[in-house]
Amino acid sequence: MTRAEPITSLQNPQLKRLVRLHGRRAREQEGVILIEGARELSRALAAGVQPTEVFSCPELHSPEAAEVTPALPVVPTLLSAAAFEKVSGRENPDGLLGVAPRPTVDLPKLPEGAVVVVLDGLEKPGNVGAILRTADASGAAAVLVLGRGADPYGPNVIRASQGSVFALPVAALDEQDAYSYLDTQGCVTVACTPDAPQVYWDAPLTGRVALLLGTEHGGLPAHWRQMGGEDSKASGAGLSVRIPMEPGSAADSLNVATAAALMLFECVRQRRAVAAAGAGQ
Amino acid sequence: MTRAEPITSLQNPQLKRLVRLHGRRAREQEGVILIEGARELSRALAAGVQPTEVFSCPELHSPEAAEVTPALPVVPTLLSAAAFEKVSGRENPDGLLGVAPRPTVDLPKLPEGAVVVVLDGLEKPGNVGAILRTADASGAAAVLVLGRGADPYGPNVIRASQGSVFALPVAALDEQDAYSYLDTQGCVTVACTPDAPQVYWDAPLTGRVALLLGTEHGGLPAHWRQMGGEDSKASGAGLSVRIPMEPGSAADSLNVATAAALMLFECVRQRRAVAAAGAGQ
Repeated sequence: MTRAEPITSLQNPQLKRLVRLHGRRAREQEGVILIEGARELSRALAAGVQPTEVFSCPELHSPEAAEVTPALPVVPTLLSAAAFEKVSGRENPDGLLGVAPRPTVDLPKLPEGAVVVVLDGLEKPGNVGAILRTADASGAAAVLVLGRGADPYGPNVIRASQGSVFALPVAALDEQDAYSYLDTQGCVTVACTPDAPQVYWDAPLTGRVALLLGTEHGGLPAHWRQMGGEDSKASGAGLSVRIPMEPGSAADSLNVATAAALMLFECVRQRRAVAAAGAGQ
Repeated sequence: MTRAEPITSLQNPQLKRLVRLHGRRAREQEGVILIEGARELSRALAAGVQPTEVFSCPELHSPEAAEVTPALPVVPTLLSAAAFEKVSGRENPDGLLGVAPRPTVDLPKLPEGAVVVVLDGLEKPGNVGAILRTADASGAAAVLVLGRGADPYGPNVIRASQGSVFALPVAALDEQDAYSYLDTQGCVTVACTPDAPQVYWDAPLTGRVALLLGTEHGGLPAHWRQMGGEDSKASGAGLSVRIPMEPGSAADSLNVATAAALMLFECVRQRRAVAAAGAGQ
């Protein structure tokens, strides 16, 4: 196989398209996602997400990028360093950028004790990515992303999640579909709000639960807090819980990714306590 | 009072100095810190940190910046928008930037049940700032910052902490001084490491504890994990705990700020459980 010449012209139409794909609309029009970085590509491949195109600059390769390259399902298109830097979304790119079809996600039938995370309108890719990483680490069953906040498959979310977005079902869907899914699956919703009387570790979180997380300032839309009414198939009305803040602290709220982590690992703690109690009988 | 003309020349020596102060060495040489933003200045003032100079661009003021301005202890030097943008560290500055003497921190005598956070070599200002915010929210007694990682009073840490850095004692000190302080105060060190057999919520964390947090990849230096030996005044040898990760998850570790939050709020949970048990007797 003859090694092709790298693309060097910054006016090359392929480069211009890659730059456009950093925008959400262009990705949605093509039905694709951008996966930059060796670790992120590895995690995507491990999850069965196959890039259909890969752009590579061996000159910029990190050791991990050089290692991943032979495992790629396509022969990479080579770019000069200047060309790669033009299409990269990073300050120190590692020389690998893939384009893959946007994953289609089948929401799972939830087993007893499953934890679902519902993100409503979160805008910062760093927060969404951090929550995906923690959701994955804590064994959450799925993440539902509502509203026109950050694209859960946007390059900055993929990066902040360190590729965890590929490791569990992450679905962007509208509120009604999310509501129907959670209701059908018998999830009790748990809203984390500063004005709730109950502290989160005192709430019963061992069943199928949907942890609702809104934006730091706006909080959750009121109708979500009231979910779980008479018509609901869920095993109980929705819960509201709060994270207790030190009186007089300057921090008037926690970062939403911090709140998510506390809730997710409280679910783990309670499940393990139940399992240990069961084993001890 | 005649309103002074704003500084407009980008070559103005005062502007050049402010740009230099974004570097740690220049701040250390002058013994000052930069406090940008209305919220951060408010938090500093509330904590008794008084800016000796403030630079202001009314044209860029957010409503909060306009509100804080009359409470400032000095008459601001006015800058044009272009001049302010040159000295700002932000993408969308709110038109307020203060210079204050670097706070001197007296480490407190620790009451029973105090929680101290020890950060060893953390480099990302975003992580350090997030930990300061959570430490404040959870009522930690102090934060010790070791090593040449992020400057805890650097502008990006101040911002990520949302000003919480001013609300609790945060000291940058060397390892030996930190060790002596914790030992004298009778703190049990708690190292968070992936290979510890005990899960964090099973460890006894209700006494005076020092939570040790290292970098995500490097973890903690080994000698810290062994702290609390024969010569120690601490009430017991150091503990090692782990955060249980879902087997098979793609996330191979948690973000250090996430780990810190889980540890800090577990300390709160255990303290409240003890207090509730005491009240119930």
